[in-house]
Amino acid sequence: MKWYDKISNKDDVVISSRVRLARNLEGFAFPARMDEDSSKKAALSVKQALENAYGTELEFAQLGNNANLLVEEHVVSPEFADNTNIYRALVSNKDKSLAIMINEEDHVRIQALFPGFDLDAAYECANKADDALIKGCSIAFDEKYGFLTSCPTNLGTGMRASVMLHLPALSAYGYIKSIVSLMNKIGLTVRGIYGEGSDARANMYQLSNQVTLGISEEDTIEKLKSAVLQIVDRERNLRKKLLEDTKSETYDKLWRSYGTLKYARRIDTNEASKLISNVRLAQVCGIIPEIKDKNLIKLLFEIMPSHIVSCFPDALDSSLRDKYRADLVRQFLQ
Amino acid sequence: MKWYDKISNKDDVVISSRVRLARNLEGFAFPARMDEDSSKKAALSVKQALENAYGTELEFAQLGNNANLLVEEHVVSPEFADNTNIYRALVSNKDKSLAIMINEEDHVRIQALFPGFDLDAAYECANKADDALIKGCSIAFDEKYGFLTSCPTNLGTGMRASVMLHLPALSAYGYIKSIVSLMNKIGLTVRGIYGEGSDARANMYQLSNQVTLGISEEDTIEKLKSAVLQIVDRERNLRKKLLEDTKSETYDKLWRSYGTLKYARRIDTNEASKLISNVRLAQVCGIIPEIKDKNLIKLLFEIMPSHIVSCFPDALDSSLRDKYRADLVRQFLQ
Repeated sequence: MKWYDKISNKDDVVISSRVRLARNLEGFAFPARMDEDSSKKAALSVKQALENAYGTELEFAQLGNNANLLVEEHVVSPEFADNTNIYRALVSNKDKSLAIMINEEDHVRIQALFPGFDLDAAYECANKADDALIKGCSIAFDEKYGFLTSCPTNLGTGMRASVMLHLPALSAYGYIKSIVSLMNKIGLTVRGIYGEGSDARANMYQLSNQVTLGISEEDTIEKLKSAVLQIVDRERNLRKKLLEDTKSETYDKLWRSYGTLKYARRIDTNEASKLISNVRLAQVCGIIPEIKDKNLIKLLFEIMPSHIVSCFPDALDSSLRDKYRADLVRQFLQ
Repeated sequence: MKWYDKISNKDDVVISSRVRLARNLEGFAFPARMDEDSSKKAALSVKQALENAYGTELEFAQLGNNANLLVEEHVVSPEFADNTNIYRALVSNKDKSLAIMINEEDHVRIQALFPGFDLDAAYECANKADDALIKGCSIAFDEKYGFLTSCPTNLGTGMRASVMLHLPALSAYGYIKSIVSLMNKIGLTVRGIYGEGSDARANMYQLSNQVTLGISEEDTIEKLKSAVLQIVDRERNLRKKLLEDTKSETYDKLWRSYGTLKYARRIDTNEASKLISNVRLAQVCGIIPEIKDKNLIKLLFEIMPSHIVSCFPDALDSSLRDKYRADLVRQFLQ
C-alpha cells in the first residue's frame, strides 16, 4: 500500500497535499557539518522519541537500495538519496503517508503526504509527529527566529506546505507563467513535482508557501488553500473550454494518447508521462468510460525508471525498461 | 460488391492484377479530336457489340457524379473522370472487375481487375471482352503496328498488364529506387497506384509492362509474372528480417499504428493510409491476431475522400471528412 493508492477520480486537479516540518536537535551541528558518530547519536535520539509516541506503528530503516524508489514516490527528497558519510535513516508508517527523514539538510524532516486536497489532515499528521519529537528531544528553537534550520529560508515555522496540481488545461492555454508570477507575489512558489528546478512532467505542478517567518502554520495553510481553490476553479473552467473550443482536436488527442498507451510495445518515461497526463484529463472529464475507475496517478509513479527496475530487476538498460514500461502500462489499462 | 472485397490475407504482397486493352474503332477520329455526335455513335456501336456477347450481364452507364469514386476504386482512370465535351460511358459487370471505358484516350479501354496475383484470369476476362468487341465492331488494326492507339506508346498489343504491390519492407530498407531502375532495364515500369506521377501511397506500387510493340500478350504477361515473383520473394524475406533485425522497434511501430487507428477521432487520408499499411504488414506477419480476417486493403479504398463523401454526404469540408474517416476506421476495426 502506497500513499498514492488512495488517489481517486474526484481528485481531478489536486493530486496530493503535503506538509513538511524542518526540525533540529540542540547540541548537534547541522548535518552538513556533522561527523558519522554524532549523526548516529542524533538518529537514535529521534528514533526513541518517535517510538515512545508511536510504538511499533512506525518503521525505522537505514536508507538502502530503495532510495531512488522513495524519491520517485515523493517520500524522500532527491538530496536525501544522495551519497553521504553521515548516518541517514527514514522513519515511516506503512503507506509512507508519514515519512520522517533523519539527517537530510536538517536533523529531522517530518513529511505528511496525503492523496487529494487535504492539507488539514496532512498538517495534523505532521503536527502529531512534531509533538512526539518535541516531547522526547531537545529541539533547537529561538524566541525571535522560531525553529532553527540549516537553511535560513526555513526559519520560523520550518514548515513547507504544498499541493501537487494537475494542470493540463492551464498549461495548454499557456497560463502557467502568469500563475507562477501571481503566486510569487502572494508568497507562494510553483515548481515541477520533483522540487526546485525540476520539469513540469505530465503537467503536474507543486504549489507551496515561500515564507516561514512571521506567519503562523495555520495562516500559511489557509493562504495556500485559498490560492489552490482559485487555481482549481480556473483549471476546471478551462477544461470545459478546452473541450468545447476545439472539441474535436482535443478529443482526438486524448483518445490517441489512450490508443498509444494501450498498444505501444516500447515507451520512454517522458512520452508515457505526457500520454498518461492526457488520458487522466480524459478520465476526469468523463471522456473514456472504460478507465473510469483506474488510478492513473498511481500509473504515473509506476512508470518511473526505479519503479520499473523494482518490478523487472533485469531492466538495467533504458531500451529494456522502455519495453517493460509499455508492458506494464498495457496491463494496467486492461 | 466491389472487386477488392475478395482480397484476402494470402494476397500479402500482390494486392491485385490488372490487364487493360486499348482499342479504337475504324472510321472515327481518336477521342481527342472527336465531336459529340460521333462520340455518341462510337459509344452506341461499342455498346451493341458488348450487349450481343454479354446480354444483361454488363451495365451501361454514362459517367456521372460517381466518377471520382470509380477513380479511387481504380475502375476508371483519373483522365476518364475529367470534364470533356464528348460522350463518355462506362460498361461494367457487377463487381466492376470488368470495366470498359468508352471514349477515354482511346475509343475503348477494356480493363479487367482481379484481387491477388491472378494475371491469367485478368487477361482471360479482358480477352473475352476484346473478342466480343472485335466480333461486333470494326477495330483499327495494322499488319505492321498491330492495334492502332491514340498514343503511340500503346501501339502493338495495346495491352498494359500490371500488378499492385504492397512493399512496406522494400520501402523501409530503401530498395524501391534500385527496383525501379532494375525493372526499367527489363522493360517494366514501377509507379504509384494512381498511375503516372502519383505517390506511393501506403507503400503500394504498380508494376506494369512498358513495351507493347514486337512482343505477344502472352510473353508480356509471362515476363511480368516472373518479375513479380522475384519482388514478392525479396519483400517476404525482408519482412522477416524487418521483424528480426529491429524487432522491438518495428513491432512497436505496427502496434502503435493499430492503437491510433482504433482510437483516433480525426484522421486525414495520408496518415490513415500510412497507418493502415503498417497494420496490414502486421496482419500478414501474424502480429495482431484480432485483425486476422479483416480486409484492410478494402479499408484503404474506403478511407479515400470521395468514398467518405459517398457514405457521409455532408462531409464536404476536409475537417469533417477527417472525423467521419476516423469513425469509419474505428467501426471497421471493431
